[in-house]
Amino acid sequence: MYRAPVEEIAHTLNHIAGLKAAIEAEKFGELTEDLVDAILSEAGRFANDEIFPLRESGDTHGAVLKDGAVTTPPGWKELYHRWIEGGWNALAAPEEYGGQGLPTMLSVAALEMWNSGSLGFAIGPTLTMGAIEALEKHASEELRATYLEKLVSGEWMGTMNLTEPQAGSDLAALRARAEPARDGTYRIFGQKIFITYGEQDFTDNIVHLVLARLPDAPAGTRGISLFLVPKFLVNEDGSLGQRNDVFCASVEHKLGIHGSPTCTMIFGDGYAEAAEPGAIGWLIGEENKGLACMFTMMNNARLAVGMQGVAVAEAAYQKALAYAQERRQGKASTYQGEGMAPIIHHPDVQRNLLTMKALTHAARAISYSCAHAIDMSRIGEAEDARHWQERAGLLTPVSKAFATDIGVDVASLGVQVHGGMGYIEETGAAALLRDARIAPIYEGTNGIQAIDLVARKLPLSGGEQVHTYIAELRNDIEALRASNAKGFGRTADNCANALTELEEATNFLLETQAAGRSEAALAGATPYLRLFALAAGGAYLVRGALADRSPSRVALARFFAENLIQETSALKSRVIEGAESLAEAGASLHA
Amino acid sequence: MYRAPVEEIAHTLNHIAGLKAAIEAEKFGELTEDLVDAILSEAGRFANDEIFPLRESGDTHGAVLKDGAVTTPPGWKELYHRWIEGGWNALAAPEEYGGQGLPTMLSVAALEMWNSGSLGFAIGPTLTMGAIEALEKHASEELRATYLEKLVSGEWMGTMNLTEPQAGSDLAALRARAEPARDGTYRIFGQKIFITYGEQDFTDNIVHLVLARLPDAPAGTRGISLFLVPKFLVNEDGSLGQRNDVFCASVEHKLGIHGSPTCTMIFGDGYAEAAEPGAIGWLIGEENKGLACMFTMMNNARLAVGMQGVAVAEAAYQKALAYAQERRQGKASTYQGEGMAPIIHHPDVQRNLLTMKALTHAARAISYSCAHAIDMSRIGEAEDARHWQERAGLLTPVSKAFATDIGVDVASLGVQVHGGMGYIEETGAAALLRDARIAPIYEGTNGIQAIDLVARKLPLSGGEQVHTYIAELRNDIEALRASNAKGFGRTADNCANALTELEEATNFLLETQAAGRSEAALAGATPYLRLFALAAGGAYLVRGALADRSPSRVALARFFAENLIQETSALKSRVIEGAESLAEAGASLHA
Repeated sequence: MYRAPVEEIAHTLNHIAGLKAAIEAEKFGELTEDLVDAILSEAGRFANDEIFPLRESGDTHGAVLKDGAVTTPPGWKELYHRWIEGGWNALAAPEEYGGQGLPTMLSVAALEMWNSGSLGFAIGPTLTMGAIEALEKHASEELRATYLEKLVSGEWMGTMNLTEPQAGSDLAALRARAEPARDGTYRIFGQKIFITYGEQDFTDNIVHLVLARLPDAPAGTRGISLFLVPKFLVNEDGSLGQRNDVFCASVEHKLGIHGSPTCTMIFGDGYAEAAEPGAIGWLIGEENKGLACMFTMMNNARLAVGMQGVAVAEAAYQKALAYAQERRQGKASTYQGEGMAPIIHHPDVQRNLLTMKALTHAARAISYSCAHAIDMSRIGEAEDARHWQERAGLLTPVSKAFATDIGVDVASLGVQVHGGMGYIEETGAAALLRDARIAPIYEGTNGIQAIDLVARKLPLSGGEQVHTYIAELRNDIEALRASNAKGFGRTADNCANALTELEEATNFLLETQAAGRSEAALAGATPYLRLFALAAGGAYLVRGALADRSPSRVALARFFAENLIQETSALKSRVIEGAESLAEAGASLHA
Repeated sequence: MYRAPVEEIAHTLNHIAGLKAAIEAEKFGELTEDLVDAILSEAGRFANDEIFPLRESGDTHGAVLKDGAVTTPPGWKELYHRWIEGGWNALAAPEEYGGQGLPTMLSVAALEMWNSGSLGFAIGPTLTMGAIEALEKHASEELRATYLEKLVSGEWMGTMNLTEPQAGSDLAALRARAEPARDGTYRIFGQKIFITYGEQDFTDNIVHLVLARLPDAPAGTRGISLFLVPKFLVNEDGSLGQRNDVFCASVEHKLGIHGSPTCTMIFGDGYAEAAEPGAIGWLIGEENKGLACMFTMMNNARLAVGMQGVAVAEAAYQKALAYAQERRQGKASTYQGEGMAPIIHHPDVQRNLLTMKALTHAARAISYSCAHAIDMSRIGEAEDARHWQERAGLLTPVSKAFATDIGVDVASLGVQVHGGMGYIEETGAAALLRDARIAPIYEGTNGIQAIDLVARKLPLSGGEQVHTYIAELRNDIEALRASNAKGFGRTADNCANALTELEEATNFLLETQAAGRSEAALAGATPYLRLFALAAGGAYLVRGALADRSPSRVALARFFAENLIQETSALKSRVIEGAESLAEAGASLHA
């Protein structure tokens, strides 16, 4: 049912997100377009032939906790081992520890395909990748030597332990505590919830990265430190030693991604026999600087979650398209064959399918462009690196929030295209909607992403970063005008309007914040993020269509510009004139 | 958790949908405002205290098929019997057969509350109500005498048997067949799918209304007849006789409404011992006129499904509001208390909650106005009746599609407000989304509703009906301007703009169809329906706010006008300039 759209992905990477130009400029060493194609094809094959066939059983069986041990769905453990044996875990990992050191653009593209295969499966390795990056950047040489190679090979997996019952979006409220021990290690106590793959049967050891407070640490987020807490302590020879006092107390019963064990983790409750109470942990980075270390993981995780949005949207689109080609009902003027027309001939079904496709392609383009910025930020000169780092910062919340929002919308449209069959679980369309629904929530809700965009990212370089970006997008529209290419209809005008609206809303928010009216700016954050994404998406689809002028890409860009992008005008109004009525009506809610 | 919003419902009925004026004009006989309040309060109490507490167990246990018998969730059978003992099944049923003959406005309002209690429970009785109306209007005196009283009392339940595997939206493809028997009855053969409450343990007998073809019937929809097929034949004294040859072969495993048994029904497969093969049925109405009879049921069912959208949205809103008042994270300028602020103080959370509330209120106003038109169509003089019948026809697809679309959107926002907890099934927010997702699909997909609106309802009275309606909505905006009421901000201007956009889109569609370009009109049907609903919703919220000028109603109308209604401009563009790119890109999908 799912076939990894390798060609479309390569086209987006090369011609929209800038991979081809970067390769030609030798930004990625010896990487060639052929190698990119080969890697994408193989990653896609793994998604198609290995992951996808186990999606449904993952949903049906889910992850099960018994006597403190988690059993993942039938076949998933073996699947994981085939995946790491293929070297996939090491794709973007540092070569020093056995990784392949390939660009983020490639790992993100592969991640999309694996997530299309199964969100519940692919989320686990995603967290390991984040743990690798946090350790590489912030951990001591000793910790790196002990853990990195095995995390890179996938022999062990990593987790992120942030959330506590009272501390979700607001990490300042964290209570988990860490006490220094005489040997330089720490003892960790506390409870963490919603820990993805906190316990599992894929690997012998699990490397938990845990936020906790030291005694006398300052209140709020400036008193949080990051610790490495392994499930099993590691002996000097690298073999597994004593069981650490960190245990899974329960696995959540969730709407979707049933195969992914979402665990409540208890640290230091005395379950493991140890000389002293507490789970044994090692400090990563400096004391009280844990949040900065964690952000290394979180930024990558946010883009990775954005890819989940793209992935589930692509899977839902393919499924709905296949159904619409098969299912027959009624008559249609464009169908001259025998019997009832395949429903893909009905304009309303076409509208649903094209909306799904266009939103998916726009979200993919934004996400890959974000990955491109991450890659460029790592290789350029200082000034250049700062520019690209800001660009990555600007696009990360947009990718995370827009891609996951459209992931839900596209999956829901997918259910609709299936009609009554869409509501039957065996069809599989509903499962995609169930899976998709987590992505706007975790790794920072989409509301938090919008606030991050408006409050922290728009002011980068005094607003110059966002304006430079908009100017680049305008170049695409100018290129379209200059091209005299056929078939674009009102695309140039509509996309240019959207960019103007983006510019006006951007200026309004920058000025409003500069005037100290941050509440009024935050009120418009969510509509602004969507406005940003639609305007960018329109320009990106134009860029992609101009690159090869294939009729279907031209038609899709035009569909986006003549049917979807106009929403920017309402979004701009919400940003600029919506805050007052929001505040007034909002006050009446808690009056 | 759910409290029936009796006051808000009464306000909407009286001051937006026209109940107060109708009572004062003595349109509903001896009905008084006090009686309305008493009925609403009692119906609400039943929803709160009886239905709602059994929602979760209904979701968890679902309906189970074993050996041909369906077991509904624990407590549901007793719940049903308390419900019919309260006389609720008979609310709007004809007095001649033991009903209370109350206006549709009241039954629809009660239905909303029961559906908020549990969609899976309330959907069953809804179908009985449709069956009562179809029998009352079209069945022979003998059939009416045998079945109506027991359907009205709720002693038996009714079902609608339309869909077959190859015939969903397109009933022309129906294959179930009916053969005349010598005694004037018929023998029914065939398979029906997605039959809601097709088998259950609430009642001793089940009255199936079944569409089937007579031998030599014309092809297509003009060869379909409607039959009554009881589960048990009825003896002359009203007692139950022989088991009829209609059986439930399977119960679907669905995304939501788990308590509602969705059955595959097999007619005439020889399971029951009978002299002749076939399920025994009686013709309702004339041969080959079955579709007209079925439309009696379907129109009511469409409004009833619209109420499901309103109902699940209201339930989701209340749940999210309660959570946002309890849950604390971060700081907020409007919160001066101790510790973290309740999240309801955060602008982004307020935006979500207000969007949920405003869309729910708009959908409720449209749906109750539709019910008002149905009531008026039954009591007026001929010319008047035709006007109101057209009005009901115009508003039925809008109510069904808009209310169920926003039902999904609002339930999804409700999950989002709950953050990570929203994804955990025990929280109950996700279950509302799962339940909500069926409503845009059944009783005619929302795509079909939009086509019905554009192709059949806009041309009513040569377009005069829709223009009269828009003119009425304009009066509300003029009344707002004339009132000099405070606190409305740009409400009048924005609502007036939306109505102008509705008018322009309406004219475009009428002209496009008149010019024979129906395909281009249908391409815009879905955005047009939403444009219609938003423009109407804005005017209705104004009407409601002007009626008592309560600060929260004024603030909500303004929020709708300054944050939501502006979408109409993009929708108008889609209707007017979207068709060409849709057709072009659509062609590339099936190329």
